[in-house]
Amino acid sequence: MNLRSIPLFFPAAMALTATAATEEDTRPDIILFMIDDMGWQDTSVPFADSVTANNLKYHTPNMERLAAKGVKFTQAYACAISSPSRCSLITGANNARHRVTNWTMERDKSTDLTRDDIILPQWNVNGVQQVPGTPNSYVGRSFVDLLRQSGYHTIHCGKAHFGAKDTPGEAPEHWGFEVNIAGHAAGGLATYLSELNYGHDKDGNPTALNSVPGLEKYWGTDTFVTEALTQEAIKALDKAARYNQPYFLYFAHYAVHTPIDRDPRFYQSYIDEGLSPKEAAYASLVAGMDKSLGDIMDWVEKKGRSENTIIIFMSDNGGLATQPEWRDGPVNTQNAPLRSGKGSLLEGGVREPMIVSWPGVTKPGDVNRNYVMIEDFYPSILEMAQVDWKAEKDKPVDGISFVPLLKEGASTPEDRELIWNYPNIWGNNGPAINLCASIRRGPWKLIYHYDTGGKELYNIPDDIGEKHNLASSEPKTVEFLSRRLGERLRAMDAQRPSFSATGKPCPWPDEIK
Amino acid sequence: MNLRSIPLFFPAAMALTATAATEEDTRPDIILFMIDDMGWQDTSVPFADSVTANNLKYHTPNMERLAAKGVKFTQAYACAISSPSRCSLITGANNARHRVTNWTMERDKSTDLTRDDIILPQWNVNGVQQVPGTPNSYVGRSFVDLLRQSGYHTIHCGKAHFGAKDTPGEAPEHWGFEVNIAGHAAGGLATYLSELNYGHDKDGNPTALNSVPGLEKYWGTDTFVTEALTQEAIKALDKAARYNQPYFLYFAHYAVHTPIDRDPRFYQSYIDEGLSPKEAAYASLVAGMDKSLGDIMDWVEKKGRSENTIIIFMSDNGGLATQPEWRDGPVNTQNAPLRSGKGSLLEGGVREPMIVSWPGVTKPGDVNRNYVMIEDFYPSILEMAQVDWKAEKDKPVDGISFVPLLKEGASTPEDRELIWNYPNIWGNNGPAINLCASIRRGPWKLIYHYDTGGKELYNIPDDIGEKHNLASSEPKTVEFLSRRLGERLRAMDAQRPSFSATGKPCPWPDEIK
Repeated sequence: MNLRSIPLFFPAAMALTATAATEEDTRPDIILFMIDDMGWQDTSVPFADSVTANNLKYHTPNMERLAAKGVKFTQAYACAISSPSRCSLITGANNARHRVTNWTMERDKSTDLTRDDIILPQWNVNGVQQVPGTPNSYVGRSFVDLLRQSGYHTIHCGKAHFGAKDTPGEAPEHWGFEVNIAGHAAGGLATYLSELNYGHDKDGNPTALNSVPGLEKYWGTDTFVTEALTQEAIKALDKAARYNQPYFLYFAHYAVHTPIDRDPRFYQSYIDEGLSPKEAAYASLVAGMDKSLGDIMDWVEKKGRSENTIIIFMSDNGGLATQPEWRDGPVNTQNAPLRSGKGSLLEGGVREPMIVSWPGVTKPGDVNRNYVMIEDFYPSILEMAQVDWKAEKDKPVDGISFVPLLKEGASTPEDRELIWNYPNIWGNNGPAINLCASIRRGPWKLIYHYDTGGKELYNIPDDIGEKHNLASSEPKTVEFLSRRLGERLRAMDAQRPSFSATGKPCPWPDEIK
Repeated sequence: MNLRSIPLFFPAAMALTATAATEEDTRPDIILFMIDDMGWQDTSVPFADSVTANNLKYHTPNMERLAAKGVKFTQAYACAISSPSRCSLITGANNARHRVTNWTMERDKSTDLTRDDIILPQWNVNGVQQVPGTPNSYVGRSFVDLLRQSGYHTIHCGKAHFGAKDTPGEAPEHWGFEVNIAGHAAGGLATYLSELNYGHDKDGNPTALNSVPGLEKYWGTDTFVTEALTQEAIKALDKAARYNQPYFLYFAHYAVHTPIDRDPRFYQSYIDEGLSPKEAAYASLVAGMDKSLGDIMDWVEKKGRSENTIIIFMSDNGGLATQPEWRDGPVNTQNAPLRSGKGSLLEGGVREPMIVSWPGVTKPGDVNRNYVMIEDFYPSILEMAQVDWKAEKDKPVDGISFVPLLKEGASTPEDRELIWNYPNIWGNNGPAINLCASIRRGPWKLIYHYDTGGKELYNIPDDIGEKHNLASSEPKTVEFLSRRLGERLRAMDAQRPSFSATGKPCPWPDEIK
């Protein structure tokens, strides 16, 4: 018998004898509250230096409540669309490395749009996996699995979107979640409406690939999906409270992704405030998500668990700003003062509302101006859970824990670099959408266009709206960042498009002078 | 930050790069087909040396088909009731060690009956767990979790019964199963009937603790639960076949546990053969389970996976023989030629129908007369899956792999000892039911009665019906086995009852001369 040599895992929290079975695990409960497609400004919490028009438009009292308890990160970044962000979150790998650079859905099928003059790379259309055997996918190691094995009870609620349909990574249970509420391969939802059975016909058959699974009991009950998920999450928490384990709840709302249905609990009040029907519908999605956050916070408080509960708020990409059928106002302005939106490497596409509340660690009402990135959540949450993940040396984790930044006065090293690679064509056009790569280092951000060789350079703290391209006036910075971006992309074995005319790859940013 | 030192796990099968993601994992698919309360003789496969009346009464063509492909073990043992067996299976620990010696259901509640003259031990009424924190439970390490981490896709279908309700161990997902169909804390089922929504009222609320969860779509469809589980298992297998991973399917039927409902697909044919309504109902449960086995075997064959699929058949304790409301004929005779039944340490309570089919390893139609025990499945399945579990040294595994016994001519060492401890009072009375311990070594079996000090000694191969108690004629064997049983029980920190009159513990078997 040819036995595989598989070192086995011993959770430190596990005991061996019946007596020790009652040993208490006092590590904190951790809730990651992740919103879909929510822009940096879609909240009444001011993440900019001053209160903006958007802050006045949206009412998110529970986000305010969370921000008052914890710290808001004003420069938190994700990728420009969902799959890259979610795959970075679960594996800790940068988007350039995991190569899930566009959105995933069906097995072996690309969602790219095409352009005659460009050949797109063979990116990982099947998403991320924990096991080998699936072509066009990245094999990573789930931080949730590590949490579970260290003794955490692990709960998934909402949108998963890790692996394509019919691949092992499609199901949250494959990533170490012990409970899965309504998560599957899809990155969106057919509808928020229970009147439409969340996208199922009267015989119970899904009417779309993104019909929301597992919420049958709410069909026809006038329960908006945001509320149904919240009720199910609270049931799972009630169960978790009996288990004498710390828990990790990944509450990944389908809100505020399209279709921008009207949440009837909140819609009319926004109409009354003068918003257009489309904008009131969008604001109602935001308000429903915020109510859900409040319900979860209420549960934690009612159960007397506040002091040992970490709550983290985040979104996976910028707010949608390219589709007039869903949003009113000129395109690319919805995330003002940021420019552009979902799909773009400009700030409107990648800057996210992030809050961390950790009683005893974060200072109530604090503001943190360090820049952090979606893959940083992996090592951060493992550090919060006291899991020494670094023993796992041969599975690259690009993220850097932001836990040290929670200490007063701590700051990101000046040479920290954030990297985006988007050698794909998404469904919408707009500024810095499609066929771009980018680097943030210190105050500077360089955006490189694979197809044109064009470069944009912004000083982010000075010019949050990215109105002033300094590429021609700061050639040395452009050269330096082009080199760093090229080096980092190549080091991560990143992909790039090619030109149809020659079959040759588009230049790396440092190959263009 | 006080980081826990948690050595992390690297499945050997996992690859690191996108290229290697397509590496093929050629380890075998493994199906463990586990029946509930099925006696050794409840089949047309002759497990005794000759065909018995029971073999002629039951028709199990698919068990015959499996036995023709593989090897039948004629001396396979489990515990006398379900929880001890299931907890040994999932942790590899002997029942005396894990102390889940009676059946579990509600948290912190014992299911023991009581007797005025006996104080029962504080056994592990909450079952087994993978994490500490739950009083009255045993913390073990699931072989399924090890399979999953080595790269297996893991599927649970049917009865779980590992941890009590509201403990972490209640859910199969806590034991490393990525898919859970209808498994929870309960060890039985409210009803097999979809007309009764498997134990839910018309509003969908469970009507009992053992209502079968998760099969809503079959309610009111005239689908016997055995068939509903089979259809769901096949759907899960269809999915597994797309995953390019080996899979482990634990198909743990609720059949043939009480209530002995009539499976309408098979009931009438047994009436036509002259069986009484109760016996025809029981035979119909057996036939439904056998049809399910056939459907699974058909799926494996149709998918062309036969050559690399291991199928193991087993039951968790002897057939029910104490309840005239469910079975006709004199009590304690239903497992003839074995004596007694479920709950007893006599052969009728613990000897099980076991078949192993492993193409290329097992010889078709072979018979294996070595004795094996339920906890042996743990190391055996891990060995089949090529997982080197022995690296995990500080989590005691009492089972011994039966894989070496599959080689022609191999036999169990003569000093192999099987141990049972049942310091509890079950719901029924009968020969060697309640307050007993037992040891099997070589041909001999000693049963010790805690309350009376009584001892029974049988030569099993000579006296399969245990009609001839040789305790008085073989005093040296009694003394030797009493010593060995006492030593083994104490070494595993086993529990024993006490006398109410004195408050003193009942003697160990070797304290009685």
